[in-house]
Amino acid sequence: MALKTREEYIESLRALNQKIYLFGELIENPVEHPMIRPSLNSVAMTYELAQDPQYEGIMTTTSHLTGKKVNRFCNIHQSKEDLINKVKMQRLCGQKTGSCFQRCVGMDAFNAVYSTTFEVDEAYKTDYHERFKKYMIYVQENDLVVDGAMTDPKGDRGLPPNKQADKDLFLRVVERREDGVVVRGAKAHQTGMVNSHEVLVMPTITMGPDDKDWAISFAVPVDTEGIISIYGRQSCDTRKLEKDVDIDLGNHNFGGHETLTIFDDVFVPNERIFLDGETDFSGMLVERFAGYHRQSYGGCKVGVGDVLIGASALAADYNGVAKASHIKDKLIEMIHLNETLYSCGIACSCEGCSTKSGNYQIDLLLANVCKQNITRYPYEISRLAEDIAGGLMVTMPSEKDFKDPKVGPYIEKYLKGAASVPTENRIRILRLIENMTLGSAAVGYRTESMHGAGSPQAQRIMISRQGKLESKKKLAKNIAKIKD
Amino acid sequence: MALKTREEYIESLRALNQKIYLFGELIENPVEHPMIRPSLNSVAMTYELAQDPQYEGIMTTTSHLTGKKVNRFCNIHQSKEDLINKVKMQRLCGQKTGSCFQRCVGMDAFNAVYSTTFEVDEAYKTDYHERFKKYMIYVQENDLVVDGAMTDPKGDRGLPPNKQADKDLFLRVVERREDGVVVRGAKAHQTGMVNSHEVLVMPTITMGPDDKDWAISFAVPVDTEGIISIYGRQSCDTRKLEKDVDIDLGNHNFGGHETLTIFDDVFVPNERIFLDGETDFSGMLVERFAGYHRQSYGGCKVGVGDVLIGASALAADYNGVAKASHIKDKLIEMIHLNETLYSCGIACSCEGCSTKSGNYQIDLLLANVCKQNITRYPYEISRLAEDIAGGLMVTMPSEKDFKDPKVGPYIEKYLKGAASVPTENRIRILRLIENMTLGSAAVGYRTESMHGAGSPQAQRIMISRQGKLESKKKLAKNIAKIKD
Amino acid sequence: MALKTREEYIESLRALNQKIYLFGELIENPVEHPMIRPSLNSVAMTYELAQDPQYEGIMTTTSHLTGKKVNRFCNIHQSKEDLINKVKMQRLCGQKTGSCFQRCVGMDAFNAVYSTTFEVDEAYKTDYHERFKKYMIYVQENDLVVDGAMTDPKGDRGLPPNKQADKDLFLRVVERREDGVVVRGAKAHQTGMVNSHEVLVMPTITMGPDDKDWAISFAVPVDTEGIISIYGRQSCDTRKLEKDVDIDLGNHNFGGHETLTIFDDVFVPNERIFLDGETDFSGMLVERFAGYHRQSYGGCKVGVGDVLIGASALAADYNGVAKASHIKDKLIEMIHLNETLYSCGIACSCEGCSTKSGNYQIDLLLANVCKQNITRYPYEISRLAEDIAGGLMVTMPSEKDFKDPKVGPYIEKYLKGAASVPTENRIRILRLIENMTLGSAAVGYRTESMHGAGSPQAQRIMISRQGKLESKKKLAKNIAKIKD
Amino acid sequence: MALKTREEYIESLRALNQKIYLFGELIENPVEHPMIRPSLNSVAMTYELAQDPQYEGIMTTTSHLTGKKVNRFCNIHQSKEDLINKVKMQRLCGQKTGSCFQRCVGMDAFNAVYSTTFEVDEAYKTDYHERFKKYMIYVQENDLVVDGAMTDPKGDRGLPPNKQADKDLFLRVVERREDGVVVRGAKAHQTGMVNSHEVLVMPTITMGPDDKDWAISFAVPVDTEGIISIYGRQSCDTRKLEKDVDIDLGNHNFGGHETLTIFDDVFVPNERIFLDGETDFSGMLVERFAGYHRQSYGGCKVGVGDVLIGASALAADYNGVAKASHIKDKLIEMIHLNETLYSCGIACSCEGCSTKSGNYQIDLLLANVCKQNITRYPYEISRLAEDIAGGLMVTMPSEKDFKDPKVGPYIEKYLKGAASVPTENRIRILRLIENMTLGSAAVGYRTESMHGAGSPQAQRIMISRQGKLESKKKLAKNIAKIKD
Repeated sequence: MALKTREEYIESLRALNQKIYLFGELIENPVEHPMIRPSLNSVAMTYELAQDPQYEGIMTTTSHLTGKKVNRFCNIHQSKEDLINKVKMQRLCGQKTGSCFQRCVGMDAFNAVYSTTFEVDEAYKTDYHERFKKYMIYVQENDLVVDGAMTDPKGDRGLPPNKQADKDLFLRVVERREDGVVVRGAKAHQTGMVNSHEVLVMPTITMGPDDKDWAISFAVPVDTEGIISIYGRQSCDTRKLEKDVDIDLGNHNFGGHETLTIFDDVFVPNERIFLDGETDFSGMLVERFAGYHRQSYGGCKVGVGDVLIGASALAADYNGVAKASHIKDKLIEMIHLNETLYSCGIACSCEGCSTKSGNYQIDLLLANVCKQNITRYPYEISRLAEDIAGGLMVTMPSEKDFKDPKVGPYIEKYLKGAASVPTENRIRILRLIENMTLGSAAVGYRTESMHGAGSPQAQRIMISRQGKLESKKKLAKNIAKIKD
Repeated sequence: MALKTREEYIESLRALNQKIYLFGELIENPVEHPMIRPSLNSVAMTYELAQDPQYEGIMTTTSHLTGKKVNRFCNIHQSKEDLINKVKMQRLCGQKTGSCFQRCVGMDAFNAVYSTTFEVDEAYKTDYHERFKKYMIYVQENDLVVDGAMTDPKGDRGLPPNKQADKDLFLRVVERREDGVVVRGAKAHQTGMVNSHEVLVMPTITMGPDDKDWAISFAVPVDTEGIISIYGRQSCDTRKLEKDVDIDLGNHNFGGHETLTIFDDVFVPNERIFLDGETDFSGMLVERFAGYHRQSYGGCKVGVGDVLIGASALAADYNGVAKASHIKDKLIEMIHLNETLYSCGIACSCEGCSTKSGNYQIDLLLANVCKQNITRYPYEISRLAEDIAGGLMVTMPSEKDFKDPKVGPYIEKYLKGAASVPTENRIRILRLIENMTLGSAAVGYRTESMHGAGSPQAQRIMISRQGKLESKKKLAKNIAKIKD
Repeated sequence: MALKTREEYIESLRALNQKIYLFGELIENPVEHPMIRPSLNSVAMTYELAQDPQYEGIMTTTSHLTGKKVNRFCNIHQSKEDLINKVKMQRLCGQKTGSCFQRCVGMDAFNAVYSTTFEVDEAYKTDYHERFKKYMIYVQENDLVVDGAMTDPKGDRGLPPNKQADKDLFLRVVERREDGVVVRGAKAHQTGMVNSHEVLVMPTITMGPDDKDWAISFAVPVDTEGIISIYGRQSCDTRKLEKDVDIDLGNHNFGGHETLTIFDDVFVPNERIFLDGETDFSGMLVERFAGYHRQSYGGCKVGVGDVLIGASALAADYNGVAKASHIKDKLIEMIHLNETLYSCGIACSCEGCSTKSGNYQIDLLLANVCKQNITRYPYEISRLAEDIAGGLMVTMPSEKDFKDPKVGPYIEKYLKGAASVPTENRIRILRLIENMTLGSAAVGYRTESMHGAGSPQAQRIMISRQGKLESKKKLAKNIAKIKD
Repeated sequence: MALKTREEYIESLRALNQKIYLFGELIENPVEHPMIRPSLNSVAMTYELAQDPQYEGIMTTTSHLTGKKVNRFCNIHQSKEDLINKVKMQRLCGQKTGSCFQRCVGMDAFNAVYSTTFEVDEAYKTDYHERFKKYMIYVQENDLVVDGAMTDPKGDRGLPPNKQADKDLFLRVVERREDGVVVRGAKAHQTGMVNSHEVLVMPTITMGPDDKDWAISFAVPVDTEGIISIYGRQSCDTRKLEKDVDIDLGNHNFGGHETLTIFDDVFVPNERIFLDGETDFSGMLVERFAGYHRQSYGGCKVGVGDVLIGASALAADYNGVAKASHIKDKLIEMIHLNETLYSCGIACSCEGCSTKSGNYQIDLLLANVCKQNITRYPYEISRLAEDIAGGLMVTMPSEKDFKDPKVGPYIEKYLKGAASVPTENRIRILRLIENMTLGSAAVGYRTESMHGAGSPQAQRIMISRQGKLESKKKLAKNIAKIKD
């Protein structure tokens, strides 16, 4: 049976021996580490929901490789319907975690590598696609979480990999052996790395003929010798380390994380190599991965947005102002913006098409339009949430004060909002909004909405390329009766 | 054969004997009237494109009533695919006319009346649905244009129809005969009335038990005794009456129009009545029609937007500034906004579902989100078009000056832009942008984007109703660990 | 006495013998021409208000050259207070005309030429400043309207004047005589030219040493031999030519205009030359003029905005929806945006400073910020006005229909809004909003807000230059404890 | 000499015996507490700058009460110039601290109480104004920081103070003695309370005749018996408690804070009471205080914005992308928005006027317009800062990792940006941007911009009241020729 339970997933992680540094120290037991655990819980939710019969159609599907039931996060999309269901699954997971659940990057990498390897093979008579299919069967059979690793540090952005002063600023092959290659470099912003079983590496830009050693794609287990992850700081991260903290976290159970992951001379066996030197296909791989991942945000961020809208509506209730027309109007605006994002996620899926390899990819123009909106609307939704929440969100005393027998009663008395609502509930919902707009989930909901799957300007370049301006000019000439 | 040619359509209009007033005079020959003709040409394009093999799949489909090929404007949507193709057809027609092509209102009315009559019959054992199916066969067989007539003058917006000082401010039954009813009232903002064969009347609001005489839906030929249309003024409308004008029109061939249409005691035979007194279904009919029509704008306005983007790109070329980075960026923004609208049109179609009667309707929440964006983005796209066009768009001399032997050469010399482009082309494209942002097409692209299919606040009310706020609150409570 | 009455102004125009073309014909009597007259009335308002004791402090001041009372439009600003009062005067004139009143361009040119000639003289020992002071005394004594003429056609925007294929695309000296020079070229977008007594020409860009013949500034009467103006088309312009029209104009009495003005070998006597070949000062002159004119928009457009806000509020009253919370909120937003513009106009005045010549100029950064906002907010204010007005604004029948005995009564009956308001009043206010958002005043309120005094990108370049980014970096380094 | 040095200020605080709780514990030595100290440093900067000769004109002025030189934060504004200089002082302090420097609230309270007491005395023959003048002399002579305390917890927002279930939810007189009164209640969001010498209490809403006991204004030392402050949590607050932390703070030296301050039966002597029962003046006091404070934000937030813009420009430099046109354009937009805010701050000052008491107050309409923009633009400036900063801002490892001998070198190597810039500098500037957009300064720059001096809707109500809609309607009627 290809579906792991939540518990099996956690046990499987425990079995790994990753090297993870945090605050200058090697983490002994990442699975139980209080700062890491909420992010693990978010990934675990992708297993839990897949076991729930009411979400079966959304969370699981049938593998076209094995005919077995698999978690949709391990699926190679076979139809527009698959693309649409992917977005719905992501919205659902966002709704259940209010956080980044990290497993999308791998799914998007699977689908990009799948179709690209097919076309590389066609051009170069290589056998990457068969290798990758075997790898996918392994992933599906074991219901794995795979970190999709694309972003190199990049160094001087004006120079190609082979011209960088430090050649390692793009990950590269430093040694070739009969049975595989040795790679060196780093991948930044690695979402969910610590909660993954494997890492699937891809190049990060379009490359030229002199960049052969940098045009490398492969997958290895995350605890392969030479891989080191340094855990990134998030806003308010150490609240998770405070003793007996619950309320102040806002979102006690869930979170996300990123790492800077170092590949310090890591060996990759041949059967795990999916691109090696075919520089003319690095651009295709990047563009397809980015396309899928820009679609993804039309699902996951919408789900997180649902939570923030719900929290804001509750804050209005608890503050006793739910009936004010301006409050109602702000909630409508939040819903409107959030559903516009969802519409973009659905539309680029619905307008998707088959690749040569047979899997489906999204409409590239609309996926970029989707992501471009994601760089804007979550910020406005956050602003409106802060408006509705009120200033108390950032001036409230700590949970320790609230629970303190001396000063707690003052807080209980004076921070009372609507008469029927316990002060604690009001504090809880304001802390959740703080978590999502300023705290650790803001990293996912705001900054990563901006930069994840490419910064805004990257989408604008794609929109320009895909926007068919010449054909639009022809429409205008016809109507204006201009003959050339 | 159910498809009329463009010429057959025009001839069929000529055969009608509508009463149309313009500038205080009864129009003798509306088909050839220079102020009306461009709007007729826009409707004619819906016939012309349906004859073009390359657009067959988009412009035509198979009637589920007769199994014959019909123009998609006469279709009862049978699937999500149908809903999506509807949007694509509308975008195409917008691209070809740069105008409002008027035929959507009837199509949206067909589908709303179709499913509503089914449910009325179910509740009241009436036979409206069978009557309407017969009517639809007639429409399809004759490839008719039908004006969907909803908006009453409304008078005092705080009062229901039966409480109005002047009872005629909502169209109503004033007499009942054995073979039918006599109605009196008016419908405002009638898009394309003058180019239609029939008018399909619907109530305009949710009604109460005392509004029975106002809960009336029916169809009659537009030249039925007692129907009078008064043609609305548009910005720059009389440029069409200027002698030998071509360039100054911006869009010489195409346009749109609206009328105020009076029903001065019009007889309606029983077989053409589709609702009569079932007040509890008036709300459903309005909501469904509005839903379809809000989807429509995600197609037609996007097509018109394509023309405006193309015109702006040409203006940049002709002004010699196409390579400036801020110009490129503005064009990207225009495309981005336009495709966001399209995404909304596609998404509400893709998320559509079957009604009890079997036809498909759009997702109501997303269709309202679509229209809400339509009340915003065409304005911003217009603003950017005016930015790129430059001030010359509104300070240029007239075509008569340009063609004048004395002053024409000065204009030729001094309004020269990019060296390789004739001054006339530059003027033509600026006049097209003027037409779409300030002139007669601005009526369609701006003000009607605002108010057509309901003003912005109407969508906000629907978004509020459909936004599932309570379920969103639950999501937030789960995450914030709030127990009630 | 230096102040003309409205009637004296009109008579003084009548005495001129300008060559003006419109629709390919030479205008015999521009003062009485129905398409031109409303724009003349707007300028006349600047005389009328100056006679009104209640506006004396705003509309008039004391000449620092003669000590006599002068119209503030002829003033050389002597203090920050003067700069502030200038903005207030412009707001007032906008409020009274709902249009562009055209006289600002000359005033802004006076002040730019005044201070620049002082500095040219200082550098080159020329006597331009004395000449110009004499000219200003003449202008003030005769209370003249002077067209400030800056914008050349420009041709290929990548090339300086001396490199253009057609050397006349920037106005230039083509012959030098003992008593003066002969110039050839054209000035585009000449606001109010037809209602002016004189034209004050300035160069339009920063020039290099090879552009000496183009670095020319001078003033001549508008009816000087060789000057020809071609009147620009505006949206809905010919409504003014319709017989017995009143309501349909929206704004019956007032308007604006622009011309393309040709200088076909025009002689300029030496005493009227204020710059001739000092190319290194052309940039200063352009920048100062643009600065003053960008400030101006923080007054005039705000006054026009006041009228549009008032009209929208009346439309809400007449439509019977003034109490709806969303309507109230939209009016608040319109006021908010309009007053933000005003704040910018006031602030760049209040932060002004003295030039070497002693007159005051505005803060350059804030004036550009002011104008940049002007390229945005009037568009949003217009959009909100169209929202409040309702669709009827663009679908209403014509005035002729309304006054027609046959169809007029239908319109009277069915377009009735709030019970207490005559239908005619409702139509009047909607036509005014149409005039300002789509019609002839939209040219001034929208497109000219965009491009007048320089297109948006011109301001962004100035903001970049004036924004003191290096000193801001230092602030950040201090706080982040970064040492170089 | 009325000006304290920075050191004297700190010593004077040390002498106080405030009761402050944080994390459930009474703080022994607030002056040296690492979480509080940065906020104290911000206030200390207002003393330091006042000693600096280059800022003398901005930071100090002459008391109209004593004729002595005083810190402008203790000034009673005597002119428009004073109002303008106030804004400039606030911008300067924001630039130097990148934080909320807390001392404005007291200054704004001084000026509101000053003019209101004058008018109360006029109406009721009380002597509040004389009392308050004596108090102001005391404040000025001792160069005190005074916490202006307005916001009550408010409970059920639909009920007046006297109808609340818990009467203490608005601060009130609970006992009257011959020599004074005893008050009970709380004030929320007390900015800078812990760094203050005195607290000046004001009522928070317009009151009715039954609210006499709640219409109370007074001043007492912050360590008066019965006053207890509970320190509010901020985003990332405990980073300040981390050992050897420097870089991770972003802004190591400066910050702000708020408290919930309890008045648990506090005695107020008669000479310190400035309003007691004159309910009809509570509205005036609130409105005036809010007006001043809404102006203040047009200074302080602009200064903080300068730092954020500078930090973003440095981030662009350090990331090696400063020459990309989209980056330059985003910096221009940030400057544009920031200077628009400044323009509003200046304009409402420049349009100020004298009160009956002789001090100057701001233009109420424009001050509300100013604050309304403050609820929007800092959010957009933050969004643009996050765009320019890049994702690294939220995924970077901690300072401890960076300084760690094992993993530090990886970070040094792989997070290198522009070749000439030390990695540490890049990290420092990204941490500063994090601090301002997500971290502890985001509380001041974002959420408090939203809610400080009243939430957005409060300004909209004032804009509506002050917007002179009726006079605008008249303007429109005149132009549309509508006669009533």
